[in-house]
Amino acid sequence: MRPSGRAPDEMRAITIETNFTKHAEGSCLVGFGDTRVLVTASVEERLPPWLRGKGEGWVTAEYSMLPRATHTRGQREAAKGKQSGRTQEIQRLIGRSLRAVTDLRKLGERQITLDCDVIQADGGTRTAAISGAWVALRLAVKGLMASGAIGDDPLTEKVAAISCGIFEGNPVLDLDYAEDSKADADANFVLIEGGKIAEVQATAEGATYDEEALLRLLRLARMGCDQIFSAQAAAVQ
Amino acid sequence: MRPSGRAPDEMRAITIETNFTKHAEGSCLVGFGDTRVLVTASVEERLPPWLRGKGEGWVTAEYSMLPRATHTRGQREAAKGKQSGRTQEIQRLIGRSLRAVTDLRKLGERQITLDCDVIQADGGTRTAAISGAWVALRLAVKGLMASGAIGDDPLTEKVAAISCGIFEGNPVLDLDYAEDSKADADANFVLIEGGKIAEVQATAEGATYDEEALLRLLRLARMGCDQIFSAQAAAVQ
Amino acid sequence: MRPSGRAPDEMRAITIETNFTKHAEGSCLVGFGDTRVLVTASVEERLPPWLRGKGEGWVTAEYSMLPRATHTRGQREAAKGKQSGRTQEIQRLIGRSLRAVTDLRKLGERQITLDCDVIQADGGTRTAAISGAWVALRLAVKGLMASGAIGDDPLTEKVAAISCGIFEGNPVLDLDYAEDSKADADANFVLIEGGKIAEVQATAEGATYDEEALLRLLRLARMGCDQIFSAQAAAVQ
Amino acid sequence: MRPSGRAPDEMRAITIETNFTKHAEGSCLVGFGDTRVLVTASVEERLPPWLRGKGEGWVTAEYSMLPRATHTRGQREAAKGKQSGRTQEIQRLIGRSLRAVTDLRKLGERQITLDCDVIQADGGTRTAAISGAWVALRLAVKGLMASGAIGDDPLTEKVAAISCGIFEGNPVLDLDYAEDSKADADANFVLIEGGKIAEVQATAEGATYDEEALLRLLRLARMGCDQIFSAQAAAVQ
Amino acid sequence: MRPSGRAPDEMRAITIETNFTKHAEGSCLVGFGDTRVLVTASVEERLPPWLRGKGEGWVTAEYSMLPRATHTRGQREAAKGKQSGRTQEIQRLIGRSLRAVTDLRKLGERQITLDCDVIQADGGTRTAAISGAWVALRLAVKGLMASGAIGDDPLTEKVAAISCGIFEGNPVLDLDYAEDSKADADANFVLIEGGKIAEVQATAEGATYDEEALLRLLRLARMGCDQIFSAQAAAVQ
Amino acid sequence: MRPSGRAPDEMRAITIETNFTKHAEGSCLVGFGDTRVLVTASVEERLPPWLRGKGEGWVTAEYSMLPRATHTRGQREAAKGKQSGRTQEIQRLIGRSLRAVTDLRKLGERQITLDCDVIQADGGTRTAAISGAWVALRLAVKGLMASGAIGDDPLTEKVAAISCGIFEGNPVLDLDYAEDSKADADANFVLIEGGKIAEVQATAEGATYDEEALLRLLRLARMGCDQIFSAQAAAVQ
Repeated sequence: MRPSGRAPDEMRAITIETNFTKHAEGSCLVGFGDTRVLVTASVEERLPPWLRGKGEGWVTAEYSMLPRATHTRGQREAAKGKQSGRTQEIQRLIGRSLRAVTDLRKLGERQITLDCDVIQADGGTRTAAISGAWVALRLAVKGLMASGAIGDDPLTEKVAAISCGIFEGNPVLDLDYAEDSKADADANFVLIEGGKIAEVQATAEGATYDEEALLRLLRLARMGCDQIFSAQAAAVQ
Repeated sequence: MRPSGRAPDEMRAITIETNFTKHAEGSCLVGFGDTRVLVTASVEERLPPWLRGKGEGWVTAEYSMLPRATHTRGQREAAKGKQSGRTQEIQRLIGRSLRAVTDLRKLGERQITLDCDVIQADGGTRTAAISGAWVALRLAVKGLMASGAIGDDPLTEKVAAISCGIFEGNPVLDLDYAEDSKADADANFVLIEGGKIAEVQATAEGATYDEEALLRLLRLARMGCDQIFSAQAAAVQ
Repeated sequence: MRPSGRAPDEMRAITIETNFTKHAEGSCLVGFGDTRVLVTASVEERLPPWLRGKGEGWVTAEYSMLPRATHTRGQREAAKGKQSGRTQEIQRLIGRSLRAVTDLRKLGERQITLDCDVIQADGGTRTAAISGAWVALRLAVKGLMASGAIGDDPLTEKVAAISCGIFEGNPVLDLDYAEDSKADADANFVLIEGGKIAEVQATAEGATYDEEALLRLLRLARMGCDQIFSAQAAAVQ
Repeated sequence: MRPSGRAPDEMRAITIETNFTKHAEGSCLVGFGDTRVLVTASVEERLPPWLRGKGEGWVTAEYSMLPRATHTRGQREAAKGKQSGRTQEIQRLIGRSLRAVTDLRKLGERQITLDCDVIQADGGTRTAAISGAWVALRLAVKGLMASGAIGDDPLTEKVAAISCGIFEGNPVLDLDYAEDSKADADANFVLIEGGKIAEVQATAEGATYDEEALLRLLRLARMGCDQIFSAQAAAVQ
Repeated sequence: MRPSGRAPDEMRAITIETNFTKHAEGSCLVGFGDTRVLVTASVEERLPPWLRGKGEGWVTAEYSMLPRATHTRGQREAAKGKQSGRTQEIQRLIGRSLRAVTDLRKLGERQITLDCDVIQADGGTRTAAISGAWVALRLAVKGLMASGAIGDDPLTEKVAAISCGIFEGNPVLDLDYAEDSKADADANFVLIEGGKIAEVQATAEGATYDEEALLRLLRLARMGCDQIFSAQAAAVQ
Repeated sequence: MRPSGRAPDEMRAITIETNFTKHAEGSCLVGFGDTRVLVTASVEERLPPWLRGKGEGWVTAEYSMLPRATHTRGQREAAKGKQSGRTQEIQRLIGRSLRAVTDLRKLGERQITLDCDVIQADGGTRTAAISGAWVALRLAVKGLMASGAIGDDPLTEKVAAISCGIFEGNPVLDLDYAEDSKADADANFVLIEGGKIAEVQATAEGATYDEEALLRLLRLARMGCDQIFSAQAAAVQ
């Protein structure tokens, strides 16, 4: 039995509120249940020095938890003076995931930064961030195409992410915090609409797992991402 | 004529959405027009070492702008590895303002941290933060009293803040970004309900001002704060 | 009764020793009683990148306390690896105050940095720093004009600063440390010769204050700054 | 055809030189072809504060590249003043991998730190580090058991890691730098002797991959790890 | 011919103004010609954790140049966020030099910190700092003995330092900046009254030197330090 | 009697294994007994901004101890976020020593960085680093000459370094850790083949020393460096 009473293959409610802030070229507040992440896409018409002059653009991401997004207050990274290893790991993953569906050449020599700030955390913040970042990026690209800055659409596929895990011996979809903190294995899948995989990060916690378990988690992830793809499509219509 | 078409003594709409996040002991999303700040109050049953053993508590604040709260993206302070002088100045002001209405002895040996994260900026972020912080603090204190952790109410007065300035020669109330960036003088007032002053920070930008102008700004501030006190009262009922 | 035996409107002795160091384009050791601040003005014929090409210059300030300027030794900020919020707040105030009396266009594309290092502290270090910085700046500008680097004088008014406060219920001028540490309210005024105000920062400590008290402090500040303007005039003759 | 002329399922030579340094409780220089990593295991009879008093120990890792381990010199992280996101991601992975085969309760209240310093890099540094870290940890634990500090062996299984990828359309085992820099997909597998999985990190680079490709890579990884388990067994005999 | 017209074995004027600041337990402004260093000795009745419980005290030093102590303004180390290698090297040298004449056991479990802040630089700042630090330390120790905190005098010998160098082929005493910046070799000697050596740091710049040159520099240093010992004795009478 | 049983003027075995890593333009693993330092020379065809355009090159060094090079594990400087004063002092010494034998004009506008990473420490790590750095630099310069990038040899002399000290009252050559930690005086000599001195750093630890002792240590150092010069010559043949 899952703490939330959900069936093993049951997602939490997915909510995507677009244009949550007015300054960003694209933005949304994405919710996976009580997890809520504000994502903004910022277009800058210049690249960092090491990326200039190659005739292509860049998509990158930054991630942060507000100090009281969690049960107990965490120290603010700006006050500590550095980003944790966890933060850096997650923002690198978000950036890679979005670049997997972006044709950087068609984007042209500009950079789009996806800022993912967790307003409230209840498990799955990185997967909600990736899924919402696609929406914010889609909106920003739409604006660039509408203004004529970009010709061909650089973003031809959707990307979404979901966590699965083995909780009390059973594979379950979309771990919330109560499950995540006790799961035997925890896997984040970043999937492309149509069946391809962008990234798998599957970690045993305490117990290890085997090939069959990995495949069962991957199948759950496909089910979950299909629901996210639908929500994304509805959001950017 | 003000860019927004407002009268000189006209505030923007004040909105206070309480309990915006579920983990914090008190929280609200406060809006002064398009400026929106998420404030959470976190109660911790321990003090930093230098405050222990005095039989009293502490109220402190942290402030941050999300990178794309503004027209153009700013660099994330956690990525830069330090908080700017502006950030530190503002969070010190917020903390002082709230301590001005808190009886630290009645609070007992615990710390309440007010995290003020600017979701969207359109001028007046520090004054919205102070005004919202009082609401979050009030809710957190209410919880402590309900649970019996605190006996006497340590928070007997309201505090609010508003910016005023001289725009194209005229004193105006509640500067938005279009005004703030061109004002000749800019003053932030932190007022206590009932007429007392907690803090004045009045700065000439380009032009200087005189005693009469300072007094006119202070009177506008009183009008503005009265409206905020009403909104605060409604929010915490 | 004030701890020093001074009358409520009595300043401490103001001393300004110009050309205290030989390398700086302008310098002085300014004293407000036992508070002593070494100020140097350094002219650099280049601007930071973000200020270039606008046909105008910049005036900025840095502030620091020597570790044993105070009763007990404070940790050196260079050793801690960062400047405190208090330091940053003060150096921003000093820079703003001097820019309030400088025509940056007449200064031309050069930067003048005012380094204010507190040799000995006894209250009022920021106000002594601002008052001395004007002298160092005046001397540096005089040199630039003498050499023909600058035509019109960019510095046509004097600026000075003084702290006032409410001590044991009475408004008093020029707080020393013994008063500052116990004052009910503490206000720093930055005034322009002739009656204009550049900046007011008035903070209640413990008790709050009202409009009348603010005005009484402002009037004391005018009396104090008049004495500083005289001392500045004598120093730069 | 692989640049090195290897068959798709052919590993590079594995070399493990134990006791490479004299001070560490366990150490080895591990080589996967030209990739060479020095691993030391340091036993400390105390835990960081947040781990104390739980009756169990901790295994952690740090990773670093010597500045000229690579084709062109990289800046030293100690000189830059921070560890890169890549470094932190890798050292967190190494620590998790080793903890997956360690019974922390049997280890007792002590910490073992695995320092993995890359002397020379030619692809696969993190997998060589994990594989070598097991050897260093095994040697350190052997010493603790020989001295009677530990009773039951806390390290009952072997862990090893290998990278696989899709290079020019074909799944290949143990990517070297020439392959890694051009691979379409790159996966690191951390496997437990006997068939269990500790961690999978599979990333599409440019192209994406599908479930079948993931499984083919996993099977190559099993072949590779079996060879590493043999080399580890020989090394610690 | 030396730029200053001094004879090869001629020191600049040595000035030592004691009790330059009022808060420190000992202080002086030491001058070697135009080089001026403010030194304060701060007594703290506690030790850093790693020195506690050994029944002895500690003497340490910190060194800093004010930004405009030099011909052109240098960046403030507190603003850069770290102390330079040069600063650390010098402050380590000052601390070692003073500990060479202090009986730490007689000092008791307290720490004395010597803060050496260069007000104006014209060569020889580290040697002036060491020589002045002895005076500040002597004054602080005198106070501890007068108050009965210390019984036996822990400071039985004098220590002083001077730089010598080879300038245009000739050994010269007490290099000023004009010489230091062009010297072929530069040596700092820290000597104990009575003939013993505490430290030699002799560096070839461009040209190298030989044993005979080293000895000639050492003999010049003895002459210089004898003059400093006299000035120190006069200062602390 | 020395702990190692060596005669007072007896060096430990010197070993120099060239081309220890394959990517660097020059490299060696140098051993002085159990002290082992990996040195790489990296040639970069560009200079830092402040050195450009002078028609000459630069030689610099970085130094680091691996965390477990020593008896007990030290914290990794990259994790602490800064290099210690000791590290900076040593790397500055290594750079100066190598520049003392390099004609920077003949080197041309390129930089050679000598990375000295201590694999295992048993006293004398800085002197081993300098001695090995000459070998790595020699190999890198040889490559530049072979490729025609450099015409005249910029490196015409050898430089080597050795530590000597006074141990239990007797001058001894090449201190190992057991001696170094208890020596009364400790001196590092950097000598040029043929008799010239590049640098002397002689420090009293506890006891002080006199001129005669300094000369006896210098003579021992000459004997030691002659052996190192032979080993260097053999290594680069």
